Amino acid sequence: MTVKTLNDLFVETLRDLYYVEKKLVKTLPKMAKKASSEDLRKAISDHLAETETHVQRLEQVFELLDRKATAKTCEALEGLIKEAEETMDEIEDAETLDAAIISSAQTVEHYEIARYGTLACWAAEIGNGEVAELLEQTLDEEKAADEKLTTIAEDAVNQRAAA
Amino acid sequence: MTVKTLNDLFVETLRDLYYVEKKLVKTLPKMAKKASSEDLRKAISDHLAETETHVQRLEQVFELLDRKATAKTCEALEGLIKEAEETMDEIEDAETLDAAIISSAQTVEHYEIARYGTLACWAAEIGNGEVAELLEQTLDEEKAADEKLTTIAEDAVNQRAAA
Repeated sequence: MTVKTLNDLFVETLRDLYYVEKKLVKTLPKMAKKASSEDLRKAISDHLAETETHVQRLEQVFELLDRKATAKTCEALEGLIKEAEETMDEIEDAETLDAAIISSAQTVEHYEIARYGTLACWAAEIGNGEVAELLEQTLDEEKAADEKLTTIAEDAVNQRAAA
Repeated sequence: MTVKTLNDLFVETLRDLYYVEKKLVKTLPKMAKKASSEDLRKAISDHLAETETHVQRLEQVFELLDRKATAKTCEALEGLIKEAEETMDEIEDAETLDAAIISSAQTVEHYEIARYGTLACWAAEIGNGEVAELLEQTLDEEKAADEKLTTIAEDAVNQRAAA
């Protein structure tokens, strides 16, 4: 489609994020399977449950905008996943693999933090407070997931990997 | 290469970031050219100067580790740039294009924030305080660049795009 207004750009970016969240519902279980740390596996599976809620929240946003929920391939996420898979394939040591999983997961979290932050700002600017609030809820959860991963890395995973 | 230790993973990620910073030195001027907002053009060109320093800082890190500075293609950045270019190509309106440039630039900033954060943690864990400090300096500048973009978006660009 041709983007002519901020509203069009908002919808395009929303479709990009919808692709991201739906893809992560499939990708997170594969990441969890590769993890050795129990804390890390639990954090990923907790975040999977949240991600399912994020999909629903985006569907609510599409509904509020009176638009059909459709996804648009997110080239950025494809790149992030490709890089994560290539890195994981190179690693032989379980503890180092855990450190790599956290690192890759945090690049995805940060992609989402950037996108939800932008979309929430745009929604407020366009004057749709209800949509902005839904997006901010998810933004807060993405930030919390990122912090949780940092804590797991610093508390145990990095030390084991460096040992 | 085969990654066997956290140290190997550190070096691989360093090579990834070295690719990112060198590529951004070429990409940022193209983004600046597309921007209409003077504040945005200035912010990008200021960040270009910082990015050149980031390249040198990474070269210092390679030197401290007694390794040759070599880059490794970053699939994640390639995806981010591809997505940014596709989005920009779809936009006809100058104000909306400015909003899109900020949004795309922030996805790149967040990629770097995630990677530098991880690398600084790993450097500290491996016991290389001098390297950790260099990486944290750049991390702080990436965070500041991201905040600057948010300010420009909120102060002017978004309002003009939504008008």
